Amino acid sequence: MSNFATRMIINAIGIPAILFLIHLGGLPFVILIAIIVVIGQIEFYSLAKRKGSDPIFITATIIGVIWIIASFYMSENLFCLLILIAIMFLIIGLFRHVSGSITDISSTILGFIYIPVFLSTIVLLRELHNFQGRKLVTLLFVSIWICDSLGFVFGKWLGKRKIAPQVSPNKSIVGCIAGFFGSLATVIIFYYMGWTPELLSFVQLIVLGLIIGTFGQIGDFVESLFKRDAGVKDTSSILLGHGGVLDRFDAFFIASPLVYLYVLLIL
Amino acid sequence: MSNFATRMIINAIGIPAILFLIHLGGLPFVILIAIIVVIGQIEFYSLAKRKGSDPIFITATIIGVIWIIASFYMSENLFCLLILIAIMFLIIGLFRHVSGSITDISSTILGFIYIPVFLSTIVLLRELHNFQGRKLVTLLFVSIWICDSLGFVFGKWLGKRKIAPQVSPNKSIVGCIAGFFGSLATVIIFYYMGWTPELLSFVQLIVLGLIIGTFGQIGDFVESLFKRDAGVKDTSSILLGHGGVLDRFDAFFIASPLVYLYVLLIL
Repeated sequence: MSNFATRMIINAIGIPAILFLIHLGGLPFVILIAIIVVIGQIEFYSLAKRKGSDPIFITATIIGVIWIIASFYMSENLFCLLILIAIMFLIIGLFRHVSGSITDISSTILGFIYIPVFLSTIVLLRELHNFQGRKLVTLLFVSIWICDSLGFVFGKWLGKRKIAPQVSPNKSIVGCIAGFFGSLATVIIFYYMGWTPELLSFVQLIVLGLIIGTFGQIGDFVESLFKRDAGVKDTSSILLGHGGVLDRFDAFFIASPLVYLYVLLIL
Repeated sequence: MSNFATRMIINAIGIPAILFLIHLGGLPFVILIAIIVVIGQIEFYSLAKRKGSDPIFITATIIGVIWIIASFYMSENLFCLLILIAIMFLIIGLFRHVSGSITDISSTILGFIYIPVFLSTIVLLRELHNFQGRKLVTLLFVSIWICDSLGFVFGKWLGKRKIAPQVSPNKSIVGCIAGFFGSLATVIIFYYMGWTPELLSFVQLIVLGLIIGTFGQIGDFVESLFKRDAGVKDTSSILLGHGGVLDRFDAFFIASPLVYLYVLLIL
């Protein structure tokens, strides 16, 4: 089966499934994010291992799941929990090998912040009931997907000039611009369809679109940077034509926390 | 001048000065912690550099100071601020060299959490007015100093068996036990002198002493681990006979956050 065909099948199953889980919210959605976090951490720590680091792999991945569940049940005390987890990684580091400990503990913590901590903001966003978290998370996912797709199509079609070939060999300037306006257009269409939270004004929504269109793409670059550093093309092949979970959800790692912080700022 | 003499001079000036700044609280105490953070970050990032990492040195140190000031003025939103700072380090990483970026960003974030984030809990603790932060922070400092001193004296005198020579070549089992009981004794003496916060019961204070006596020393080991990994004896010579700031304040990095979390838990 061609790469394109497997991509289409994954999309045909994955997109409605994710939209349905966003609609449901609660634990089913938490489980979706937890699965992304587990696979994402395995992929990230594999990249770190390729660079000679020996992260606290299994423990950090298990605690990543606990973190996602904690963000669902006790969003208030996450700062305290993060301090406790960082101390725990340092203490575990004491019982491992001395040589390389700075790098090992460092990469463990980077992976933990980049994946569970950043993605937990999607759970926090979904649980903003009074602010209609369901509408916000649906908008976040759809506008990132539209951004990715338009970027891909326009990049293939017109994208001669590359934007940062040393970080991401395929991203073109045209693709980035198309993706940016795709995000913005999604927000505007959602607004006119009445699918956006009533509490957000049109101008606040436009800013939201700018954040997603800009920082979703910066998220792509950050993930590409890690892959390039480790010298791999895809983080795994779990999603077949889509590569790994980090490849597929790269935009969310940076865009979701910023959308969450922006919404908190408005509230 | 001998090492011992310079140590005594540093103590004769440093201990009363620190106790006075704890007594004052407010900005003067924040400035003390900020100075410790700046030198501590410079020392930590120098260790990371010795291990081949190229951390985002200057920016992270400046933001470390901002973090300490932020913990004084807006203790509520530190989780959000930490997410923003982590995203900022990732974005800065995009504009540096690709090769080594995982290690560079990792060590930047570890240094940031280990030094400014962990030490900001001393500021947070000092600012717990209703819980008499002044008494708590004084108790924290004095019991760590007593723990260090008793550990040193008893270790020199009776400490034949080393506890973990691969991490910390000088620490003996006897020294650790003496330090542990030194912390506990400090808390008990403070209690009978009426110097402890009224809101803490005797049993709660004993637990506080156990936390300081245990995790202060674990803090010593964590810092030794980093030094051993980097292959240095002292992190710098800024405090003359005392070595660097990381050497002198090593116990606080792990003990202070845990004391802060414990006090929050009681409140």
